[in-house]
Amino acid sequence: MSDLRERAAELDAADPLHAHVDRFVPAAGVRAYLDGNSLGRPLSSTVDRLGDFVRDDWGTRLIRSWDEGWMERPFELGDRIARLTLGAAAGQTLVADSTTVLLYKLLDAAAGARADRHEIAIESTNFPTDRFIAHAVAERRGMTLRWIDADPVTGVSPEQVDRAVGEQTAVVLLNHVDYRSGSIADLTAITARVHTSGALMLWDLCHSAGVVPVDLDAADVDLAVGCTYKYLNGGPGSPAFGYVAARHQENLRQPIEGWMGAGNVFAMAREYTPAAGMRRFLSGTPPILGMLAIDDMLDLIEEAGVDAIRAKSISLTSFVVSAADELLPGVRLLSPRDAALRGGHVTLGHPDFESVVRTLWGEGIIPDFRYPDGLRLGLSPLSTTHAEALEGVLAIRDALGA
Amino acid sequence: MSDLRERAAELDAADPLHAHVDRFVPAAGVRAYLDGNSLGRPLSSTVDRLGDFVRDDWGTRLIRSWDEGWMERPFELGDRIARLTLGAAAGQTLVADSTTVLLYKLLDAAAGARADRHEIAIESTNFPTDRFIAHAVAERRGMTLRWIDADPVTGVSPEQVDRAVGEQTAVVLLNHVDYRSGSIADLTAITARVHTSGALMLWDLCHSAGVVPVDLDAADVDLAVGCTYKYLNGGPGSPAFGYVAARHQENLRQPIEGWMGAGNVFAMAREYTPAAGMRRFLSGTPPILGMLAIDDMLDLIEEAGVDAIRAKSISLTSFVVSAADELLPGVRLLSPRDAALRGGHVTLGHPDFESVVRTLWGEGIIPDFRYPDGLRLGLSPLSTTHAEALEGVLAIRDALGA
Repeated sequence: MSDLRERAAELDAADPLHAHVDRFVPAAGVRAYLDGNSLGRPLSSTVDRLGDFVRDDWGTRLIRSWDEGWMERPFELGDRIARLTLGAAAGQTLVADSTTVLLYKLLDAAAGARADRHEIAIESTNFPTDRFIAHAVAERRGMTLRWIDADPVTGVSPEQVDRAVGEQTAVVLLNHVDYRSGSIADLTAITARVHTSGALMLWDLCHSAGVVPVDLDAADVDLAVGCTYKYLNGGPGSPAFGYVAARHQENLRQPIEGWMGAGNVFAMAREYTPAAGMRRFLSGTPPILGMLAIDDMLDLIEEAGVDAIRAKSISLTSFVVSAADELLPGVRLLSPRDAALRGGHVTLGHPDFESVVRTLWGEGIIPDFRYPDGLRLGLSPLSTTHAEALEGVLAIRDALGA
Repeated sequence: MSDLRERAAELDAADPLHAHVDRFVPAAGVRAYLDGNSLGRPLSSTVDRLGDFVRDDWGTRLIRSWDEGWMERPFELGDRIARLTLGAAAGQTLVADSTTVLLYKLLDAAAGARADRHEIAIESTNFPTDRFIAHAVAERRGMTLRWIDADPVTGVSPEQVDRAVGEQTAVVLLNHVDYRSGSIADLTAITARVHTSGALMLWDLCHSAGVVPVDLDAADVDLAVGCTYKYLNGGPGSPAFGYVAARHQENLRQPIEGWMGAGNVFAMAREYTPAAGMRRFLSGTPPILGMLAIDDMLDLIEEAGVDAIRAKSISLTSFVVSAADELLPGVRLLSPRDAALRGGHVTLGHPDFESVVRTLWGEGIIPDFRYPDGLRLGLSPLSTTHAEALEGVLAIRDALGA
């Protein structure tokens, strides 16, 4: 155990991103925050940014700010997320709505673009909102769901996708990084298999953006949706991002056609005509306040570099896996052992974990619980140290032994 | 003119709410802000509230805050809006999504509850997003739109609604306060007429909430949607509120069924089962940051009282109408002359107003322009003085004369 403490200290000392940890708001009473994959910590600069915004922008420029920048914010911020974390050229990404709502809009648009086909393919144990939304879209369009049964730890394989899709498949919706196991799907190979069948591929990047680099343009991805309140630290309920490849934009119609997606917002025309480009995927007034904090995190991501972030992420999760091997003999590893196949979080399994997580929270150790018996350790690379991660594993050991 | 200045000073001196004007963030360089019906000004307390939230709540309680309060925020804030401004008992109102998205969800749910009927009735010149969404819902369900042609100044009458609705009408969607003229529809009488035909009534309260009291429960309204960034000062793109009468909640299904509206959010069940009560109308993660500023304004509304707010609103709009009569002889009044029929804004018409508004903005006088030739003066009672309103009318006179 003292070896592990020494090892954590060595890893932190050698970590080129270690100093960035001090840029986050200090959390009094928290010994280890291990849920950055659920809600990222705010940067200290965000405290002033929000107050300054209220005083100098909203409070002083008032309605003029819509013309002076706010109308373009969904696209500027989307392009910045795209450039820094998605491998996507400008003009294909926006920030809007909740992840659930934007997923509904893009999945429905994709299904509509393949209206002669009757199936939506989805993983059986996908994140609930993805499954619920797939069901809602399928019901709306008289389509059926095709379930792909993947291994809960290693996730969905290209071969499984290949077997599931066919000439009736309109669109495939999968998570790039699984919300439970953290397993990384082979985005490039799966996208290619889906295209062979003539279907569209929609990736859910909620657990990827900001921690596992993706290359949407190079992989020829059609659509993607993701979350900004995890590794992009946008704050609770900050809006989603959505990507639609440029080649598809003019052919897709989303279902919630509102004034902000219309060709001329203020012409007050009787008929809706979709705007050109990504604007047509907007519905209502952009949630400007909810977009502010994301820029602080993107500043830091740009400074640190995504490759260094991924390297630290691998270091953190590998260290946790080896610490769990040593300290938690009765616990199952519910994440891939191969770091190349693992995203930013590690999930462990034990029948007592529901009560263990309650105990840990009371001690200022904050992982989260995932039904039925998973304890998930989310290790946000820019705000988490190896020593902090070890605190978490040690506390689990103590709680299990108690 | 000096008489008008004296009159403005007298009205401000006698205004029991006058001191509240100083509670708002000072807007440097702004001589008259006359667009509070489009974007309300922030209260000074909001500057600190947002920073404090980042540091002490999000940054310190972190993910624990979802259990400690955030999960209930959409309903607590909704209930508070309901109690203070909507005349609605608790358990019928939530805060979520953009106005456009929430309108889509509630209109679709209402249409689904009358699935044996084939028409949605809507005013021809309703706000664009309302018309676009009605069109989208009708298309999705194979329904047709029934247009009601109302007078652009006086708005829709109960008799017109009576003639338009019938046994094929599933739901009627109307604005309570018209976004152009500010005319107030007879909510109680129209709701009763709609019910006679067996249809449901969905009111858009965007230009009512916080300035024109409504009494949803007493009027037996079925559903309502409204905006929080106008007279409720929630900030640019703050989330919408939605009302569903208790008697309908268990019978309505909204189309964007996501994890936050499910019966057990974290059970990760395969099938979606809607939650009881208003929670089933949630879709994605609640936008907590976007809800914070609204509470500051509700504090002030509670302190001032809605009747006093309505009285000041009438005083402001009446004063602007008389000032326009005197100072702007070539300009048409595009709002009702009878104060009892007029909401919180006044619209004037003149062919030169598109360029006039540009001129005024350059001078720190900020109304807004509404196609084709309307200049809209939004007079938010808690942040606007009679002297400020007069500045606006005088500046219009000067700009027209130039």
